Order: sequence, then C-alpha cells, then structure tokens
Amino acid sequence: METFIAAVDLGGTAIKGALFTDKGSLVIKHSSSTESERGYTHVLKNIDALINQLCAQAGCDIKQVAKVGLGVPAFTSNAGKRVVLAPNLGWRDVCCAADLSRIVGLPVFCNNDANLAALGEYWQGMGRGTENMLMITIGTGIGSGLILAGELYQGTSGMAVEIGHMVIMAEDGPQCGCGRRGCVETLTSAPAVLSQAKKALRLPRGEWPAMTVTDVKQVYQAAADGDPRAAEIVERAAYYLGTALANILNFYELDRIVIGGGVSQAGGILLNPLRRVVERETIFYQRRPTEIVLGKLGNDAGIYGAARWALLHQ
Amino acid sequence: METFIAAVDLGGTAIKGALFTDKGSLVIKHSSSTESERGYTHVLKNIDALINQLCAQAGCDIKQVAKVGLGVPAFTSNAGKRVVLAPNLGWRDVCCAADLSRIVGLPVFCNNDANLAALGEYWQGMGRGTENMLMITIGTGIGSGLILAGELYQGTSGMAVEIGHMVIMAEDGPQCGCGRRGCVETLTSAPAVLSQAKKALRLPRGEWPAMTVTDVKQVYQAAADGDPRAAEIVERAAYYLGTALANILNFYELDRIVIGGGVSQAGGILLNPLRRVVERETIFYQRRPTEIVLGKLGNDAGIYGAARWALLHQ
Repeated sequence: METFIAAVDLGGTAIKGALFTDKGSLVIKHSSSTESERGYTHVLKNIDALINQLCAQAGCDIKQVAKVGLGVPAFTSNAGKRVVLAPNLGWRDVCCAADLSRIVGLPVFCNNDANLAALGEYWQGMGRGTENMLMITIGTGIGSGLILAGELYQGTSGMAVEIGHMVIMAEDGPQCGCGRRGCVETLTSAPAVLSQAKKALRLPRGEWPAMTVTDVKQVYQAAADGDPRAAEIVERAAYYLGTALANILNFYELDRIVIGGGVSQAGGILLNPLRRVVERETIFYQRRPTEIVLGKLGNDAGIYGAARWALLHQ
Repeated sequence: METFIAAVDLGGTAIKGALFTDKGSLVIKHSSSTESERGYTHVLKNIDALINQLCAQAGCDIKQVAKVGLGVPAFTSNAGKRVVLAPNLGWRDVCCAADLSRIVGLPVFCNNDANLAALGEYWQGMGRGTENMLMITIGTGIGSGLILAGELYQGTSGMAVEIGHMVIMAEDGPQCGCGRRGCVETLTSAPAVLSQAKKALRLPRGEWPAMTVTDVKQVYQAAADGDPRAAEIVERAAYYLGTALANILNFYELDRIVIGGGVSQAGGILLNPLRRVVERETIFYQRRPTEIVLGKLGNDAGIYGAARWALLHQ
C-alpha cells in the first residue's frame, strides 16, 4: 500500500497543504483559511480538516498518511517541538506538533516556516547540489533559513538565522517590531519598499487606497518600465539587502543564496542590482563567489520543506 | 631528546616569538623588529634570526625544533599556505610559509593572526571548554577568529570571519579602508574611539600632539574616573560593537565571545555596557545566553595559537 506524507505550511491568513509520496513527489495541494482569530485549537482543527480534505481529493485513506510536516511562522525551540512565539498567530509557548498529533492521530514534525522553505529549496529547488546555502524569503517580513554541510542549521535554541533582524543602520534606522533599530527588514521588506514608494511619489494617502503588500510588485514593475523614482527605490532595497548579505558572507562562506517570497517575483529587477552590491561589498568576492539565484519552488517551498522535514524524522 | 615548537606572531612593527614544548608549555618568548620597509625576504630573515635567538636563550639546538607556527596580519588562502594580501607589510600573493621554511629549514604552518589568536584562547585561554567561540581582537583594526565545533573555521577560501568589516551604519557611516561604508571597524577600533574623543573634547589638533593609538586607554580611564564625555564615547563604542555581535548571534549561535587586543585592557568599562547591548539586541537572548569575556592570554594569544596551529599539522 502506497504511503504519503502530509505537508502543511501555516501562515497568518492561509494554510497551504499538500500530499507527497514517500519518494518525495507532490501529489496534490490545496489551501484553506487559518482563522487564527478563532483561537489555537480551532487553527489545529482547520489543519486536520485540510489534511483530510487532501486525502479525499487524492482518493487515499488517512491511514495511508505516515506523518505530517508542519511549518509555522514562529520562533521555535527544541528542534521545532515547541513554539516560543508566533506573533501573527497570537501563539506563545505551545507544543503545536504534539497538540496537532493528538488531533490528527499521526506523528507531526514542526519547524519554523523560513527554515522549512530553505530545506524545500535545498531538497528539490535551487539549493540542489550545494553544501552551504542560505535562503531569504522576502515578503511582509524577511525570513531566512540556513543549510550547513547539507543539514538544516538551527543551533541548539532554534533562535538563530534571523537575517531580517540584522541591524545595518544603527542609531537612525527605522524602528523594528523586534525592538531593534535599522533592521534590514525595516528597509527591504515589502511594506518597507511600499512605504518608500509612497513617500517618493508624494501622493496624499487617499490616492493609494487599495495599496497593500502585494502591490509592491507595481513598484518593481514601474522600475522595469523605466520609472526613475521606482528604479531608485529598487536600487536602495537592493543596496540594503546586499549589505546584509555581504555582512553574512564576510563572516561565513556560502555556496549559494536563494531568494524567495513574494518580492522575489521582481526577478532580475531586484536580482541584478543585488548581485552587484554583494560583489562590491564582499571582501575578495572573486576568490569565493556566491551564486545569488531566485527560488524555483515559489510559494510551495514551505510545503516541500515540511514534507522533507517529516521524511527526515521518525 | 625534548622537542620544541617555534611560534611566531608577525605584526606590522614587531615580531613576537616563543618556544613551546611539544606538550604546549611556553618555554621562552622574545620580540624583535619587523622592519617591513626593508622588504619581504628581510622580514623572513628577521623571523629566522628570532627563532635562532630563542633557541640560544633556551639553551637548545635548532634541531630540537620540530616545526614553526606563524601568524600573519593578512588575508590568507589555501589553509594559510598563501598570503593574498597583507596591507601593513606590503605583501601580496606570497607563499610565506614555504619561503620561510626554506630559510629556517623547518616545516612552517601559517595562518591569519586573528584566527590564530582565537585558536590560542580556545586552546589555553578563555575559550577552553567551549565548542563554538568567536574571538574579537580590537586594536588598530578589528580582527576576528571563529572556532566551530572545536575547530578553527576558515571556509574554503580563508576570506571569511571578518567581523570588522560588517556594515552597521549603511549610507552615512564613515568610509573604511576596505571600500565599504560604516564598517564596525570605523566605529569601534582604537583609532575610531580616539577620533571621537578628540572631537568630543573639541581641542585644537595642536593640543593632542602625542596622542597615539595606545592613548585610547586614556579615554577608557577617563570614563572609569567619571568623565561624562569619555563615558559617552565608551557607551557608543559598546553600542556599535554590541550591535555587530548581536547581528552575528541573530545569525549563528555561539557559546562564548572572547574580547582581546589592546582595547580589551579597558576591562569592565567596555565589557559591562557591551554585555547590556548584546543582551538587548539579541533575539530571545535569555534562551541562548552567550558569555562575553575578556581574553586571558593578552598579547600572547597569537603565539599560543601559532604553536597550536603547528602542533595540529604534520
């Protein structure tokens, strides 16, 4: 009897779910609403419902699912077993893997979503063939995951690899939600780029009524179309992100950096200036070039990583 | 017959040398002038003379010396075999280990001086008992060396672990010799602190005629004595360095950070505010506290590390 892995990427607004074969092929995927405002247990039940729905759609029995991999937008400790804090979900100090396991009736293996996105790209995306790979996921925030010597790096606490909260503009930088000032997230995330765009275009607030995080694509598109103000904003975003990446490369050697998340859809418009900054700001870059590429799995990186994380555990 | 290791820490102005027993005990140490202005081969001959002088003083024959460990103030590649660039010596692309080996008639094992200082503290100083340790050497510049899982980390190129060239003040930071702007070295090194002191005290240049890099101790002493302007300068230096260290800890978990170099003589005056900044700026610091301590070996960290580096190689 064929067995499957259920992979779940839990976000603040949507739950992405998928079934994978135990050989790692994606069988089917589907999304549902998180409904985090209805509380912790309700979210876990929504995940359970999504897994059952995936089984129904794939025409398989839940008994054929061997285990569940779960990515959460959270600081996790103890190899992902405990969620210390998930700001977007309102969770604090919960063992969601164990709790979900009781509801679903299957072993659940949990980790931070950005870590699992890195693991996903390493497994079946643009990280293949590397040994030391960093993945940066740029969206509302900046997430990051690190593969060292072919394994997901978490440290002992699970609190490391937070590139988004690297301060690159000490003293006068924008205030970050984490408490620091001048974190790269406050300068390069989608909301940061949008906020700069609004300022640069000097439009009254009323004229940007529909502008949301996804509209950052418009800024990148305008830059691609030759708008000089948009181009300058994109150049600055690339400078800030490139500065942070060069800071990492001046500390630790990496084969490849994979850029994912919504903002990565800007493609070459972001990637080309970013590469130039990293090349210029990394000491002796030519002697240890690091490839900077766009992710291949798009928004599915997280579910691939969740599947892989479950496959790696017993 | 007892055998020895010769350890050499080459600086821009002085060569520090020592003999160690093959069990790792320091037998004797001595210094001489580098005389880098007299050229590459002359410096190597000065090192050879110092090693022979050490043997004479210790009453041992040069034949009892098994090998030489050599620290150089340089970017090195190929596990230290090649010096890519040593700005203070005027060296570029030389194989000084092989060249010195021909002159001394012994195997020579070379590496970057800050790397070897870290190795020295790890071996017989304040890094003992750790697994993942960073050493920061603060003086004219800021050097750093990293021990991961008990081994000196160099990457494949040898160009990594340059914390001094982490940009923490993008855009408006001071210009650094490395080409970047706002490197932590431009904000926290001895000359940076001195330069801020001169500005803060608003003295005309003529009234600081004798002030050199070593005079930075005066600034720290004035802070210890309660001078509010000096105290503010020291607080700022701690803020900048602490920001850089927290950036590292938000990326990679470390057990301990050891502070060495001339500026470390400031002791608690620097260490206490530094610890406060790192504690505040590191995400979930309490869940993964990192000890920040002063080095124990002082200016000898480099020769200890050079001896250890030679002992580790055949």
